[in-house]
Amino acid sequence: MTGRDGGADLHPIGNSPVVILVRPQLADNVGAVARAMANGGLFHLRLVAPRDGWPQERAWRMASGADRILDALTVHATVNDAVADLHHVFATCPRPRHIIKPVLTARGAAAEARAICARPLRCGFLFGPERAGLDNDDMACADMLVRYPLNPAFMSLNLAQAVMVMAYEWWTATDETPVRALMTNETKVATKGDLDNFLAHLVAELDESGFLRNLPKRPGMVRNIRHFFQRGEVTEQELRTLHGMVTELALGRRQRGRPEG
Amino acid sequence: MTGRDGGADLHPIGNSPVVILVRPQLADNVGAVARAMANGGLFHLRLVAPRDGWPQERAWRMASGADRILDALTVHATVNDAVADLHHVFATCPRPRHIIKPVLTARGAAAEARAICARPLRCGFLFGPERAGLDNDDMACADMLVRYPLNPAFMSLNLAQAVMVMAYEWWTATDETPVRALMTNETKVATKGDLDNFLAHLVAELDESGFLRNLPKRPGMVRNIRHFFQRGEVTEQELRTLHGMVTELALGRRQRGRPEG
Repeated sequence: MTGRDGGADLHPIGNSPVVILVRPQLADNVGAVARAMANGGLFHLRLVAPRDGWPQERAWRMASGADRILDALTVHATVNDAVADLHHVFATCPRPRHIIKPVLTARGAAAEARAICARPLRCGFLFGPERAGLDNDDMACADMLVRYPLNPAFMSLNLAQAVMVMAYEWWTATDETPVRALMTNETKVATKGDLDNFLAHLVAELDESGFLRNLPKRPGMVRNIRHFFQRGEVTEQELRTLHGMVTELALGRRQRGRPEG
Repeated sequence: MTGRDGGADLHPIGNSPVVILVRPQLADNVGAVARAMANGGLFHLRLVAPRDGWPQERAWRMASGADRILDALTVHATVNDAVADLHHVFATCPRPRHIIKPVLTARGAAAEARAICARPLRCGFLFGPERAGLDNDDMACADMLVRYPLNPAFMSLNLAQAVMVMAYEWWTATDETPVRALMTNETKVATKGDLDNFLAHLVAELDESGFLRNLPKRPGMVRNIRHFFQRGEVTEQELRTLHGMVTELALGRRQRGRPEG
């Protein structure tokens, strides 16, 4: 029923929420949903009464390799059947009316789902059909509603995009990537000594060239140059390139300065 | 050049980042990107060397009403031309190598972009072609890289999905929706007095029916019933319904208890 074993190749984590597409219209969207789920570490997909039946070849073409999610999905006649083995159900719903239920943002729902999965209980997210969204009976099956904070002037959210946002929040809810880092990979950041060595080289050549000949202004100019090269981290490779540039530029000047042979 | 006026209908905010699709292959994706941008409050779209030329009717069909973004987009021959009037450029890049640049998460980049737009300076996000992503020359035009924290076992992210995540983070960076709220709309939450009144009605009928006839257990049973009805907020409408249910159930019992006429 749950397809819990089918997505093993894509499955870095244990218990994760089920995505339930209620009366989806387009098989393309089901495939795109599977791809978005794989991006965000969701692997259990269920369909309730897909309009055009199931399976549909187009879905696999749109899944870009997230085949195991499609291979393992289950099809259900009703929402009640699709959620029968779950302990907690979220309903995504852009404009809930006359309903008394907790409403979470996508981020809040992701945190809640993480907590539920950790207990460990099983939870799922209902997503409505492309045009109409979930109806009132669908929402009566849910414990909580999820409403994304998005531009109220343009609420038409593609089904796979809706799943993408939820899957992204599910993933980032436990992600510990620093908000900002410096990418260096195999490149090493130069030390201040290396940088100083380059600046000495540069200033010597600038002195030689006459660029710093205004002695009263020289200290300020040197300081400004130093400021410029301190603006961001510099790699060892970049310093080698800078040394080479200065050497070659100075050499060109010297050669031009010599009488032609 | 910038299409800054074209998206006015969808445009609740002032200065916002430009989305730059570098060598996009599929017009469908350009349309889906426009839709995702509108969802997240981004309105300025530029294309660099779209594979199949521009305009393409398919894009408008996929945009689901975000036409103004497509109507106003500009096409550029090179990345350099597309970013020429910007002050700061982010490059989205799933697997940067041998590059020394700050790398931000989508959330970090959104905060940075908000700060840049507030100064106010103009910034933009580069998104690479569907298959290959940005190349090294493209990335050399950028100040910072953006790498989304997503499932490393399945990095194949649809172009419109990539834009959706960034647009979503752009929007939520200043959104103040509480993570959790209770949806009531026109429905009013009942007071504790209203609830107590219902519980008195219920207990009276349960006493009458004999359900609470075990007197030593009665206080605990009443307390458990009270706990159950306190589990979540109850609306005035729900209390009216509950009163009616209890009255009718009790009436049915009384009528059955009477000799048939």
